[in-house]
Amino acid sequence: MNADQLFKQIREKRSFLCVGLDTDIQKIPKFLLDTTDPVFAFNKKIIDATADLTVAYKPNIAFYESLGVQGWASLEKTVNYIRSEYPEIFIIADAKRGDIGNTSAMYARAFFDHMDFDAVTVAPYMGEDSVKPFLTFLDKWVILLALTSNKGAFDFQFLKNEENGEQLFETVLKKSQQWGTTDNMMYVVGATKAEKLKEIREIVPDHFLLVPGVGAQGGSLREVAENGMNDQCGLLVNSSRQILYADDSKDFAKAAREQTEGLQVGMEELLLEAELI
Amino acid sequence: MNADQLFKQIREKRSFLCVGLDTDIQKIPKFLLDTTDPVFAFNKKIIDATADLTVAYKPNIAFYESLGVQGWASLEKTVNYIRSEYPEIFIIADAKRGDIGNTSAMYARAFFDHMDFDAVTVAPYMGEDSVKPFLTFLDKWVILLALTSNKGAFDFQFLKNEENGEQLFETVLKKSQQWGTTDNMMYVVGATKAEKLKEIREIVPDHFLLVPGVGAQGGSLREVAENGMNDQCGLLVNSSRQILYADDSKDFAKAAREQTEGLQVGMEELLLEAELI
Repeated sequence: MNADQLFKQIREKRSFLCVGLDTDIQKIPKFLLDTTDPVFAFNKKIIDATADLTVAYKPNIAFYESLGVQGWASLEKTVNYIRSEYPEIFIIADAKRGDIGNTSAMYARAFFDHMDFDAVTVAPYMGEDSVKPFLTFLDKWVILLALTSNKGAFDFQFLKNEENGEQLFETVLKKSQQWGTTDNMMYVVGATKAEKLKEIREIVPDHFLLVPGVGAQGGSLREVAENGMNDQCGLLVNSSRQILYADDSKDFAKAAREQTEGLQVGMEELLLEAELI
Repeated sequence: MNADQLFKQIREKRSFLCVGLDTDIQKIPKFLLDTTDPVFAFNKKIIDATADLTVAYKPNIAFYESLGVQGWASLEKTVNYIRSEYPEIFIIADAKRGDIGNTSAMYARAFFDHMDFDAVTVAPYMGEDSVKPFLTFLDKWVILLALTSNKGAFDFQFLKNEENGEQLFETVLKKSQQWGTTDNMMYVVGATKAEKLKEIREIVPDHFLLVPGVGAQGGSLREVAENGMNDQCGLLVNSSRQILYADDSKDFAKAAREQTEGLQVGMEELLLEAELI
Protein backbone atom coordinates (compact mmCIF):
# COMPACT_ATOMS: atom_id res chain seq x y z
CA MET A 1 0.00 0.00 0.00
CA ASN A 2 1.27 3.51 -0.74
CA ALA A 3 0.46 6.83 0.95
CA ASP A 4 -2.21 7.77 -1.64
CA GLN A 5 -4.08 4.52 -1.07
CA LEU A 6 -3.93 5.03 2.67
CA PHE A 7 -5.31 8.57 2.33
CA LYS A 8 -8.09 7.29 0.06
CA GLN A 9 -9.11 4.83 2.76
CA ILE A 10 -9.03 7.60 5.38
CA ARG A 11 -11.41 9.71 3.27
CA GLU A 12 -13.74 6.81 2.59
CA LYS A 13 -13.97 5.71 6.21
CA ARG A 14 -13.83 9.29 7.54
CA SER A 15 -11.37 8.00 10.11
CA PHE A 16 -7.64 7.87 10.73
CA LEU A 17 -7.93 5.35 13.52
CA CYS A 18 -5.50 2.52 14.13
CA VAL A 19 -6.76 -0.10 16.58
CA GLY A 20 -3.93 -1.59 18.62
CA LEU A 21 -4.41 -5.32 19.11
CA ASP A 22 -2.58 -5.53 22.46
CA THR A 23 -4.53 -8.66 23.25
CA ASP A 24 -3.83 -9.80 26.80
CA ILE A 25 -5.20 -13.23 27.62
CA GLN A 26 -5.57 -12.14 31.25
CA LYS A 27 -7.87 -9.26 30.29
CA ILE A 28 -10.17 -10.74 27.65
CA PRO A 29 -13.67 -11.90 28.66
CA LYS A 30 -13.45 -15.15 30.61
CA PHE A 31 -16.01 -17.03 28.49
CA LEU A 32 -13.56 -16.92 25.56
CA LEU A 33 -11.04 -19.04 27.46
CA ASP A 34 -13.10 -22.13 26.57
CA THR A 35 -12.46 -21.66 22.84
CA THR A 36 -9.51 -23.35 21.13
CA ASP A 37 -7.76 -20.06 20.40
CA PRO A 38 -9.07 -17.38 22.79
CA VAL A 39 -6.73 -14.66 21.54
CA PHE A 40 -7.78 -15.12 17.93
CA ALA A 41 -11.46 -15.48 18.91
CA PHE A 42 -11.22 -12.15 20.73
CA ASN A 43 -9.37 -10.42 17.88
CA LYS A 44 -11.85 -11.68 15.29
CA LYS A 45 -14.80 -10.22 17.20
CA ILE A 46 -13.01 -6.91 17.75
CA ILE A 47 -12.02 -6.72 14.08
CA ASP A 48 -15.52 -7.53 12.79
CA ALA A 49 -16.99 -4.91 15.13
CA THR A 50 -14.59 -2.12 14.13
CA ALA A 51 -13.23 -2.69 10.59
CA ASP A 52 -15.56 -0.21 8.85
CA LEU A 53 -14.39 2.55 11.21
CA THR A 54 -10.71 1.69 11.21
CA VAL A 55 -7.94 2.17 8.65
CA ALA A 56 -5.25 0.17 10.42
CA TYR A 57 -4.76 -2.62 12.93
CA LYS A 58 -1.61 -2.85 14.99
CA PRO A 59 -0.95 -6.14 16.77
CA ASN A 60 1.54 -5.54 19.56
CA ILE A 61 3.91 -8.45 19.03
CA ALA A 62 4.99 -8.70 22.69
CA PHE A 63 1.53 -9.84 23.73
CA TYR A 64 1.66 -12.75 21.26
CA GLU A 65 5.28 -13.69 22.00
CA SER A 66 4.49 -13.94 25.70
CA LEU A 67 2.35 -17.00 24.83
CA GLY A 68 5.05 -18.71 22.80
CA VAL A 69 4.15 -20.98 19.87
CA GLN A 70 0.42 -20.66 20.58
CA GLY A 71 0.67 -16.86 20.63
CA TRP A 72 2.56 -16.82 17.38
CA ALA A 73 -0.17 -19.01 15.82
CA SER A 74 -2.86 -16.57 17.04
CA LEU A 75 -0.90 -13.70 15.52
CA GLU A 76 -0.61 -15.39 12.12
CA LYS A 77 -4.31 -16.21 12.11
CA THR A 78 -5.17 -12.63 13.01
CA VAL A 79 -3.10 -11.17 10.17
CA ASN A 80 -4.50 -13.69 7.69
CA TYR A 81 -8.04 -12.94 8.81
CA ILE A 82 -7.69 -9.18 8.35
CA ARG A 83 -5.98 -9.67 4.99
CA SER A 84 -8.72 -11.94 3.64
CA GLU A 85 -11.81 -10.18 5.05
CA TYR A 86 -10.72 -6.52 4.98
CA PRO A 87 -8.00 -6.28 2.31
CA GLU A 88 -8.04 -2.46 2.32
CA ILE A 89 -6.74 -2.27 5.89
CA PHE A 90 -3.15 -1.35 6.73
CA ILE A 91 -1.60 -3.86 9.15
CA ILE A 92 1.25 -2.81 11.42
CA ALA A 93 3.52 -5.15 13.37
CA ASP A 94 4.32 -3.18 16.50
CA ALA A 95 7.59 -4.93 17.11
CA LYS A 96 10.21 -2.22 17.74
CA ARG A 97 12.84 -4.34 16.00
CA GLY A 98 16.27 -3.28 14.71
CA ASP A 99 19.59 -5.13 14.49
CA ILE A 100 22.65 -5.48 12.24
CA GLY A 101 21.79 -5.80 8.55
CA ASN A 102 21.64 -9.57 8.14
CA THR A 103 19.47 -9.84 11.25
CA SER A 104 17.10 -7.01 10.33
CA ALA A 105 16.71 -8.79 6.99
CA MET A 106 15.48 -11.84 8.92
CA TYR A 107 12.98 -9.73 10.87
CA ALA A 108 11.78 -8.27 7.57
CA ARG A 109 11.24 -11.79 6.26
CA ALA A 110 9.27 -12.67 9.41
CA PHE A 111 6.85 -9.76 9.08
CA PHE A 112 6.70 -9.15 5.32
CA ASP A 113 7.31 -12.60 3.78
CA HIS A 114 6.19 -15.15 6.31
CA MET A 115 3.33 -12.92 7.44
CA ASP A 116 1.72 -10.26 5.30
CA PHE A 117 2.09 -7.13 7.42
CA ASP A 118 2.23 -3.75 5.65
CA ALA A 119 4.57 -2.14 8.15
CA VAL A 120 6.81 -2.80 11.11
CA THR A 121 7.90 -0.43 13.88
CA VAL A 122 11.69 -0.14 14.13
CA ALA A 123 13.99 1.38 16.78
CA PRO A 124 16.65 3.75 15.39
CA TYR A 125 19.55 3.24 17.81
CA MET A 126 21.58 1.00 15.47
CA GLY A 127 21.28 3.36 12.50
CA GLU A 128 20.88 3.04 8.76
CA ASP A 129 21.89 -0.57 8.11
CA SER A 130 19.47 -1.74 10.80
CA VAL A 131 16.58 -0.02 9.01
CA LYS A 132 17.36 -0.44 5.31
CA PRO A 133 16.64 -4.19 4.97
CA PHE A 134 12.97 -3.47 5.79
CA LEU A 135 12.82 -0.88 2.99
CA THR A 136 13.77 -3.29 0.22
CA PHE A 137 10.26 -4.82 0.20
CA LEU A 138 7.90 -3.24 -2.33
CA ASP A 139 4.91 -1.42 -0.80
CA LYS A 140 6.03 -2.26 2.73
CA TRP A 141 6.81 0.34 5.37
CA VAL A 142 9.14 1.10 8.23
CA ILE A 143 7.62 3.08 11.10
CA LEU A 144 10.65 4.47 12.89
CA LEU A 145 10.59 5.50 16.55
CA ALA A 146 11.17 9.24 16.81
CA LEU A 147 9.54 10.60 19.96
CA THR A 148 7.80 7.99 22.08
CA SER A 149 4.85 8.41 24.43
CA ASN A 150 6.45 7.06 27.60
CA LYS A 151 8.28 8.71 30.49
CA GLY A 152 11.59 7.13 29.43
CA ALA A 153 11.46 9.23 26.25
CA PHE A 154 13.09 11.96 28.35
CA ASP A 155 16.16 9.84 29.08
CA PHE A 156 17.78 10.10 25.64
CA GLN A 157 15.41 11.39 22.95
CA PHE A 158 15.72 15.04 23.99
CA LEU A 159 19.51 15.13 24.36
CA LYS A 160 20.88 18.07 22.42
CA ASN A 161 23.67 17.56 19.95
CA GLU A 162 26.79 19.67 20.58
CA GLU A 163 27.30 20.35 16.88
CA ASN A 164 23.98 21.95 15.97
CA GLY A 165 21.74 21.97 19.05
CA GLU A 166 19.39 19.40 17.52
CA GLN A 167 17.67 17.02 19.89
CA LEU A 168 18.23 13.31 19.27
CA PHE A 169 14.71 12.71 17.96
CA GLU A 170 15.19 15.59 15.48
CA THR A 171 18.45 14.08 14.23
CA VAL A 172 16.66 10.74 13.85
CA LEU A 173 13.94 12.42 11.78
CA LYS A 174 16.40 14.33 9.59
CA LYS A 175 18.93 11.61 8.96
CA SER A 176 16.40 8.84 8.34
CA GLN A 177 14.62 10.82 5.64
CA GLN A 178 17.57 9.97 3.43
CA TRP A 179 16.92 6.26 3.89
CA GLY A 180 13.37 6.01 2.60
CA THR A 181 10.51 7.97 1.06
CA THR A 182 7.07 9.23 2.11
CA ASP A 183 5.76 6.00 0.57
CA ASN A 184 7.74 3.63 2.77
CA MET A 185 8.57 5.44 5.99
CA MET A 186 6.46 6.78 8.83
CA TYR A 187 7.44 7.93 12.30
CA VAL A 188 6.16 7.15 15.78
CA VAL A 189 5.34 10.34 17.68
CA GLY A 190 3.58 9.93 21.03
CA ALA A 191 0.33 11.82 21.61
CA THR A 192 1.61 12.69 25.07
CA LYS A 193 4.09 14.96 23.28
CA ALA A 194 1.43 16.69 21.12
CA GLU A 195 3.00 20.13 21.60
CA LYS A 196 6.07 18.79 19.82
CA LEU A 197 4.09 17.76 16.75
CA LYS A 198 4.31 21.25 15.27
CA GLU A 199 8.10 21.22 15.35
CA ILE A 200 8.11 17.69 13.98
CA ARG A 201 5.86 18.70 11.09
CA GLU A 202 8.47 21.29 10.10
CA ILE A 203 11.06 18.54 9.76
CA VAL A 204 8.81 15.91 8.16
CA PRO A 205 5.94 17.83 6.52
CA ASP A 206 4.82 15.00 4.26
CA HIS A 207 5.40 11.75 6.15
CA PHE A 208 2.64 9.85 7.87
CA LEU A 209 2.97 9.78 11.66
CA LEU A 210 1.77 6.94 13.85
CA VAL A 211 0.54 8.45 17.09
CA PRO A 212 0.07 6.20 20.11
CA GLY A 213 -0.90 7.41 23.56
CA VAL A 214 -4.39 8.82 22.95
CA GLY A 215 -6.70 7.49 25.65
CA ALA A 216 -5.16 5.30 28.38
CA GLN A 217 -1.83 7.13 28.13
CA GLY A 218 -3.47 10.57 28.33
CA GLY A 219 -3.02 12.24 24.90
CA SER A 220 -5.71 14.43 23.31
CA LEU A 221 -7.00 13.69 19.81
CA ARG A 222 -7.80 17.33 18.99
CA GLU A 223 -4.37 18.53 20.04
CA VAL A 224 -2.75 15.83 17.92
CA ALA A 225 -4.80 16.76 14.85
CA GLU A 226 -4.34 20.51 15.25
CA ASN A 227 -0.58 20.15 15.49
CA GLY A 228 0.07 17.18 13.28
CA MET A 229 -2.38 16.96 10.40
CA ASN A 230 -1.13 17.65 6.87
CA ASP A 231 -2.92 17.83 3.51
CA GLN A 232 -3.04 14.03 3.21
CA CYS A 233 -4.15 13.75 6.84
CA GLY A 234 -0.70 12.31 7.59
CA LEU A 235 -1.83 10.77 10.86
CA LEU A 236 -2.69 7.34 12.12
CA VAL A 237 -3.88 7.68 15.69
CA ASN A 238 -3.77 4.51 17.73
CA SER A 239 -6.10 3.42 20.47
CA SER A 240 -5.80 0.06 22.19
CA ARG A 241 -6.98 -0.49 25.75
CA GLN A 242 -9.89 1.97 25.53
CA ILE A 243 -11.40 -0.14 22.74
CA LEU A 244 -10.30 -3.68 23.60
CA TYR A 245 -11.26 -3.67 27.25
CA ALA A 246 -14.31 -1.40 27.20
CA ASP A 247 -16.36 -4.29 28.61
CA ASP A 248 -15.57 -7.84 29.71
CA SER A 249 -18.99 -9.43 29.24
CA LYS A 250 -20.43 -11.30 26.24
CA ASP A 251 -21.13 -7.85 24.79
CA PHE A 252 -17.47 -6.80 24.66
CA ALA A 253 -17.48 -6.36 20.88
CA LYS A 254 -20.51 -4.07 21.02
CA ALA A 255 -18.81 -1.95 23.69
CA ALA A 256 -15.63 -1.90 21.62
CA ARG A 257 -17.63 -0.65 18.63
CA GLU A 258 -19.18 2.12 20.71
CA GLN A 259 -15.75 3.32 21.80
CA THR A 260 -14.55 3.13 18.21
CA GLU A 261 -17.55 5.09 16.96
CA GLY A 262 -16.79 7.78 19.52
CA LEU A 263 -13.25 8.10 18.21
CA GLN A 264 -14.34 7.96 14.56
CA VAL A 265 -16.90 10.72 15.06
CA GLY A 266 -14.20 12.91 16.61
CA MET A 267 -11.88 12.15 13.70
CA GLU A 268 -14.56 12.86 11.09
CA GLU A 269 -15.10 16.26 12.67
CA LEU A 270 -11.38 17.02 12.53
CA LEU A 271 -11.14 15.87 8.90
CA LEU A 272 -14.12 18.08 8.02
CA GLU A 273 -12.59 21.07 9.80
CA ALA A 274 -9.39 20.53 7.85
CA GLU A 275 -11.46 20.26 4.64
CA LEU A 276 -9.96 16.88 3.81
CA ILE A 277 -13.38 15.29 3.34
CA MET B 1 22.70 -16.83 37.52
CA ASN B 2 24.77 -14.05 39.08
CA ALA B 3 28.12 -12.59 38.01
CA ASP B 4 30.13 -14.76 40.43
CA GLN B 5 28.60 -17.94 39.04
CA LEU B 6 29.33 -16.80 35.51
CA PHE B 7 32.97 -16.06 36.38
CA LYS B 8 33.26 -19.47 38.06
CA GLN B 9 32.11 -21.11 34.84
CA ILE B 10 34.61 -19.03 32.85
CA ARG B 11 37.46 -20.24 35.06
CA GLU B 12 36.34 -23.85 34.92
CA LYS B 13 35.96 -23.93 31.17
CA ARG B 14 38.93 -21.60 30.57
CA SER B 15 36.76 -19.79 28.08
CA PHE B 16 34.59 -16.69 27.83
CA LEU B 17 32.99 -17.75 24.59
CA CYS B 18 29.37 -17.17 23.67
CA VAL B 19 28.21 -19.13 20.64
CA GLY B 20 25.60 -17.24 18.64
CA LEU B 21 22.88 -19.55 17.38
CA ASP B 22 22.02 -17.51 14.26
CA THR B 23 20.66 -20.64 12.67
CA ASP B 24 19.70 -19.99 9.06
CA ILE B 25 17.75 -22.80 7.44
CA GLN B 26 19.23 -21.79 4.08
CA LYS B 27 22.78 -22.29 5.35
CA ILE B 28 22.60 -25.50 7.39
CA PRO B 29 23.75 -28.78 5.82
CA LYS B 30 21.18 -30.00 3.31
CA PHE B 31 20.86 -33.51 4.73
CA LEU B 32 19.24 -32.03 7.87
CA LEU B 33 16.29 -30.77 5.86
CA ASP B 34 14.85 -34.30 5.90
CA THR B 35 14.46 -34.26 9.69
CA THR B 36 11.23 -33.08 11.34
CA ASP B 37 12.86 -30.02 12.87
CA PRO B 38 16.02 -29.16 10.94
CA VAL B 39 16.81 -26.01 12.93
CA PHE B 40 16.65 -27.83 16.26
CA ALA B 41 18.54 -30.83 14.86
CA PHE B 42 21.31 -28.47 13.75
CA ASN B 43 21.38 -26.59 17.06
CA LYS B 44 21.49 -29.80 19.09
CA LYS B 45 24.55 -31.05 17.19
CA ILE B 46 26.29 -27.68 17.51
CA ILE B 47 25.52 -27.50 21.23
CA ASP B 48 26.70 -31.05 21.95
CA ALA B 49 29.91 -30.38 20.03
CA THR B 50 30.73 -27.11 21.81
CA ALA B 51 29.13 -27.00 25.28
CA ASP B 52 32.28 -27.90 27.23
CA LEU B 53 34.15 -24.99 25.60
CA THR B 54 31.35 -22.45 25.82
CA VAL B 55 29.89 -20.44 28.70
CA ALA B 56 26.92 -18.95 26.86
CA TYR B 57 24.62 -19.59 23.91
CA LYS B 58 22.87 -16.74 22.18
CA PRO B 59 19.98 -17.62 19.86
CA ASN B 60 19.35 -14.71 17.52
CA ILE B 61 15.57 -14.46 17.71
CA ALA B 62 15.14 -12.99 14.21
CA PHE B 63 16.29 -16.22 12.61
CA TYR B 64 13.57 -18.19 14.44
CA GLU B 65 10.84 -15.60 13.92
CA SER B 66 11.47 -15.64 10.19
CA LEU B 67 10.11 -19.22 10.20
CA GLY B 68 6.95 -18.34 12.14
CA VAL B 69 5.30 -20.88 14.43
CA GLN B 70 7.75 -23.61 13.41
CA GLY B 71 10.72 -21.33 14.15
CA TRP B 72 9.34 -20.42 17.53
CA ALA B 73 8.94 -24.13 18.32
CA SER B 74 12.58 -24.76 17.34
CA LEU B 75 13.65 -21.92 19.61
CA GLU B 76 11.74 -23.25 22.61
CA LYS B 77 13.17 -26.74 22.07
CA THR B 78 16.69 -25.31 21.82
CA VAL B 79 16.40 -23.40 25.10
CA ASN B 80 14.88 -26.41 26.87
CA TYR B 81 17.62 -28.66 25.53
CA ILE B 82 20.44 -26.43 26.77
CA ARG B 83 18.72 -25.96 30.14
CA SER B 84 18.28 -29.70 30.70
CA GLU B 85 21.60 -30.97 29.34
CA TYR B 86 23.96 -28.14 30.25
CA PRO B 87 22.35 -26.32 33.19
CA GLU B 88 25.50 -24.30 33.95
CA ILE B 89 25.30 -22.42 30.64
CA PHE B 90 24.10 -18.82 30.38
CA ILE B 91 21.42 -18.43 27.68
CA ILE B 92 20.90 -15.09 25.96
CA ALA B 93 17.89 -14.11 23.84
CA ASP B 94 19.38 -11.78 21.27
CA ALA B 95 16.15 -9.92 20.67
CA LYS B 96 16.94 -6.17 20.86
CA ARG B 97 13.54 -5.54 22.43
CA GLY B 98 12.32 -2.43 24.28
CA ASP B 99 8.90 -0.76 24.46
CA ILE B 100 6.65 1.10 26.91
CA GLY B 101 6.49 -0.50 30.34
CA ASN B 102 3.45 -2.76 29.97
CA THR B 103 4.80 -4.05 26.65
CA SER B 104 8.35 -4.63 27.87
CA ALA B 105 6.77 -6.59 30.73
CA MET B 106 5.19 -8.86 28.11
CA TYR B 107 8.54 -9.37 26.36
CA ALA B 108 10.05 -10.20 29.74
CA ARG B 109 7.36 -12.82 30.26
CA ALA B 110 8.08 -14.27 26.82
CA PHE B 111 11.79 -14.74 27.46
CA PHE B 112 11.97 -15.28 31.23
CA ASP B 113 8.66 -16.96 32.12
CA HIS B 114 7.47 -18.74 29.01
CA MET B 115 11.05 -19.64 28.05
CA ASP B 116 13.90 -19.94 30.51
CA PHE B 117 16.47 -17.53 29.10
CA ASP B 118 18.96 -15.94 31.51
CA ALA B 119 19.22 -12.66 29.63
CA VAL B 120 17.73 -10.61 26.85
CA THR B 121 19.33 -7.88 24.74
CA VAL B 122 17.44 -4.57 24.95
CA ALA B 123 17.65 -1.34 22.91
CA PRO B 124 17.93 1.84 25.03
CA TYR B 125 16.12 4.41 22.86
CA MET B 126 12.88 4.39 24.92
CA GLY B 127 14.67 4.84 28.25
CA GLU B 128 14.24 3.60 31.78
CA ASP B 129 10.66 2.33 31.81
CA SER B 130 11.36 0.25 28.70
CA VAL B 131 14.23 -1.53 30.49
CA LYS B 132 13.06 -1.86 34.09
CA PRO B 133 10.37 -4.56 33.60
CA PHE B 134 13.12 -6.97 32.55
CA LEU B 135 15.02 -6.26 35.78
CA THR B 136 12.22 -7.35 38.11
CA PHE B 137 12.96 -11.05 37.45
CA LEU B 138 15.31 -12.62 39.99
CA ASP B 139 18.67 -13.78 38.55
CA LYS B 140 17.72 -12.61 35.05
CA TRP B 141 19.67 -10.04 33.08
CA VAL B 142 19.28 -7.16 30.68
CA ILE B 143 22.05 -6.74 28.12
CA LEU B 144 21.66 -3.17 26.97
CA LEU B 145 22.93 -1.94 23.59
CA ALA B 146 25.66 0.61 24.14
CA LEU B 147 28.03 0.63 21.18
CA THR B 148 27.11 -1.77 18.41
CA SER B 149 29.37 -3.49 15.90
CA ASN B 150 27.70 -2.28 12.70
CA LYS B 151 28.31 0.70 10.42
CA GLY B 152 25.02 2.32 11.49
CA ALA B 153 26.48 2.72 14.99
CA PHE B 154 28.01 5.94 13.65
CA ASP B 155 24.60 7.46 12.85
CA PHE B 156 23.53 8.23 16.42
CA GLN B 157 25.64 6.47 19.04
CA PHE B 158 28.57 8.90 18.78
CA LEU B 159 26.53 12.13 18.83
CA LYS B 160 27.97 14.45 21.46
CA ASN B 161 25.70 15.96 24.06
CA GLU B 162 25.75 19.76 24.20
CA GLU B 163 25.62 19.83 27.98
CA ASN B 164 28.71 17.80 28.86
CA GLY B 165 30.29 16.60 25.62
CA GLU B 166 29.39 12.98 26.34
CA GLN B 167 28.66 10.75 23.39
CA LEU B 168 25.23 9.09 23.31
CA PHE B 169 26.63 5.61 24.09
CA GLU B 170 28.44 7.09 27.11
CA THR B 171 25.23 8.68 28.39
CA VAL B 172 23.46 5.33 27.90
CA LEU B 173 26.16 3.61 29.97
CA LYS B 174 26.10 6.20 32.74
CA LYS B 175 22.38 6.67 33.09
CA SER B 176 21.48 2.99 32.86
CA GLN B 177 23.83 2.07 35.72
CA GLN B 178 21.23 3.58 38.01
CA TRP B 179 18.61 1.12 36.75
CA GLY B 180 20.30 -2.17 37.59
CA THR B 181 23.36 -3.73 39.17
CA THR B 182 26.45 -5.66 38.04
CA ASP B 183 24.39 -8.78 38.77
CA ASN B 184 21.55 -8.01 36.36
CA MET B 185 22.91 -5.71 33.67
CA MET B 186 25.50 -6.15 30.94
CA TYR B 187 26.25 -4.03 27.89
CA VAL B 188 26.71 -4.80 24.21
CA VAL B 189 29.97 -3.37 22.90
CA GLY B 190 30.98 -4.37 19.39
CA ALA B 191 34.43 -5.89 18.85
CA THR B 192 34.78 -3.70 15.79
CA LYS B 193 35.06 -0.78 18.24
CA ALA B 194 37.73 -2.45 20.41
CA GLU B 195 39.72 0.77 20.77
CA LYS B 196 36.68 2.22 22.58
CA LEU B 197 36.65 -0.56 25.15
CA LYS B 198 39.24 1.20 27.32
CA GLU B 199 37.05 4.31 27.62
CA ILE B 200 34.01 2.14 28.27
CA ARG B 201 35.82 0.28 31.05
CA GLU B 202 36.36 3.60 32.79
CA ILE B 203 32.59 4.16 32.86
CA VAL B 204 31.55 0.58 33.67
CA PRO B 205 34.57 -1.03 35.33
CA ASP B 206 32.67 -3.94 36.86
CA HIS B 207 29.88 -4.85 34.44
CA PHE B 208 30.08 -7.78 32.08
CA LEU B 209 30.22 -6.80 28.41
CA LEU B 210 28.81 -8.89 25.59
CA VAL B 211 31.09 -8.43 22.61
CA PRO B 212 29.84 -9.44 19.17
CA GLY B 213 31.72 -8.88 15.96
CA VAL B 214 34.79 -11.11 16.45
CA GLY B 215 35.30 -13.19 13.31
CA ALA B 216 32.92 -12.56 10.38
CA GLN B 217 32.53 -8.90 11.32
CA GLY B 218 36.29 -8.34 11.67
CA GLY B 219 37.01 -7.76 15.38
CA SER B 220 40.18 -9.07 17.06
CA LEU B 221 39.95 -11.22 20.21
CA ARG B 222 43.29 -10.07 21.62
CA GLU B 223 42.43 -6.41 21.21
CA VAL B 224 39.07 -6.96 22.92
CA ALA B 225 40.69 -8.73 25.88
CA GLU B 226 43.53 -6.25 26.26
CA ASN B 227 41.13 -3.32 26.36
CA GLY B 228 38.09 -4.83 28.01
CA MET B 229 39.00 -7.54 30.52
CA ASN B 230 38.48 -6.84 34.22
CA ASP B 231 39.29 -8.87 37.35
CA GLN B 232 36.22 -11.10 36.86
CA CYS B 233 37.01 -11.42 33.15
CA GLY B 234 33.93 -9.25 32.51
CA LEU B 235 33.69 -10.35 28.89
CA LEU B 236 31.49 -12.66 26.89
CA VAL B 237 32.82 -12.74 23.35
CA ASN B 238 30.38 -13.96 20.75
CA SER B 239 31.11 -15.92 17.62
CA SER B 240 28.37 -17.16 15.31
CA ARG B 241 28.97 -17.69 11.62
CA GLN B 242 32.61 -18.79 12.00
CA ILE B 243 31.45 -21.72 14.15
CA LEU B 244 28.03 -22.58 12.73
CA TYR B 245 28.97 -22.64 9.08
CA ALA B 246 32.54 -23.92 9.26
CA ASP B 247 31.48 -26.88 7.10
CA ASP B 248 28.25 -27.94 5.39
CA SER B 249 28.85 -31.69 5.18
CA LYS B 250 27.82 -34.47 7.59
CA ASP B 251 30.87 -33.45 9.62
CA PHE B 252 29.66 -29.91 10.32
CA ALA B 253 29.62 -30.42 14.10
CA LYS B 254 33.22 -31.63 14.09
CA ALA B 255 34.27 -28.57 12.08
CA ALA B 256 32.28 -26.34 14.45
CA ARG B 257 34.13 -27.88 17.39
CA GLU B 258 37.49 -27.27 15.76
CA GLN B 259 36.65 -23.59 15.29
CA THR B 260 35.42 -23.41 18.88
CA GLU B 261 38.60 -25.06 20.16
CA GLY B 262 40.65 -22.48 18.30
CA LEU B 263 38.76 -19.68 20.00
CA GLN B 264 38.87 -21.36 23.41
CA VAL B 265 42.64 -21.85 23.20
CA GLY B 266 43.04 -18.16 22.42
CA MET B 267 40.80 -17.25 25.34
CA GLU B 268 42.63 -19.57 27.73
CA GLU B 269 45.89 -17.87 26.81
CA LEU B 270 44.38 -14.43 27.50
CA LEU B 271 42.92 -15.58 30.84
CA LEU B 272 46.33 -16.98 31.82
CA GLU B 273 48.09 -13.76 30.83
CA ALA B 274 45.62 -11.82 32.98
CA GLU B 275 46.24 -14.29 35.83
CA LEU B 276 42.54 -15.06 36.13
CA ILE B 277 43.15 -18.83 35.93
